[in-house]
Amino acid sequence: MSHCVITYHAPMARWEPDAAGRLREAALDLYVAQGYEQTTVAEIAERAGVTARTFFRHFADKREVLFAGSEQLEARMVAALAGVPDGAAPMVAVGAALDGAAEVLGGNHAFSRRRQSVIVANPELHERELIKMSRLAGALTQGLVDRGAPADEARLASEAGIAVFRIGFERWVAGPKKGDLGAVLRESLGQLRGLTGQ
Amino acid sequence: MSHCVITYHAPMARWEPDAAGRLREAALDLYVAQGYEQTTVAEIAERAGVTARTFFRHFADKREVLFAGSEQLEARMVAALAGVPDGAAPMVAVGAALDGAAEVLGGNHAFSRRRQSVIVANPELHERELIKMSRLAGALTQGLVDRGAPADEARLASEAGIAVFRIGFERWVAGPKKGDLGAVLRESLGQLRGLTGQ
Repeated sequence: MSHCVITYHAPMARWEPDAAGRLREAALDLYVAQGYEQTTVAEIAERAGVTARTFFRHFADKREVLFAGSEQLEARMVAALAGVPDGAAPMVAVGAALDGAAEVLGGNHAFSRRRQSVIVANPELHERELIKMSRLAGALTQGLVDRGAPADEARLASEAGIAVFRIGFERWVAGPKKGDLGAVLRESLGQLRGLTGQ
Repeated sequence: MSHCVITYHAPMARWEPDAAGRLREAALDLYVAQGYEQTTVAEIAERAGVTARTFFRHFADKREVLFAGSEQLEARMVAALAGVPDGAAPMVAVGAALDGAAEVLGGNHAFSRRRQSVIVANPELHERELIKMSRLAGALTQGLVDRGAPADEARLASEAGIAVFRIGFERWVAGPKKGDLGAVLRESLGQLRGLTGQ
């Protein structure tokens, strides 16, 4: 095979600090307007004013535009959980992780709402979201085990916490744009406490 | 297109009442011994002493051999939930659904254990299991809404119940073969109650 050196520079290939952000907005605009399946990477790049090569510098494919923030979310939730004083109960630590999630996601209601509408409309994306949530639960479980919780309790508390996160997040997304994600998540956690106390 | 009439009868094509059961056992034997990916439908059919055509009368593909019981599980859990007296709390109804699951699955520890080892070893199967669990949670949610529970509470109770089911089931599978699945699930539910009460 020959060694291929790419020397062509497209007129629109620019390094701009927020190319990723503009690509994300452009992708969502198109997914909402014409459907996820129907949208190509070329269209997303064109709308964002960059080349397809720039797109692929930031995202592996058009699906990853929707899931690129999940590492950051996991890192913040795990850090919040780890930051809870020693000896606190597992669900208290999980509550802190939910507060961490709200800090990451709570600032952009419009983006979350549009993203959610795209995911709900597409079974493949919905499955991907489930898998990401399962990994998130695994990371919280490990965090609780690291804090000294028995494995079974750590898993139960984490899975219950992720259920609270998913249900609360969807409630927040469906609600008014000034809604406080942290407050909604705490309310959902309280609701779970009430239900299991019966 | 021509109308195709199948007239050939293979020597091994027999209608046997437990062909499905034998196919399931044969498939698990092969998945455990040589790996899921490496096993073909032809090998499964041969080991069960039937033709590939007979296999496809019972299962859509080799993956469905592992998931064919999920409709029955869902039906039994939903029926158990619906059979709880009116006015009982959502988590009480979810507890009855878990008892229903134990009645369906609790009788075959060896099968469950081998099935679990195959699923854990294969990410694609693990994802399929997650999706099936999510559908199960959706069915329980609908059952609770039908009983008059508010939608959010129904979802929280169902998702928490499915977390209990998954974690308890895995604990039972990993434990001694005389273990009582119903008792393990009730113990896990009690553990969740303890955790959320803290």
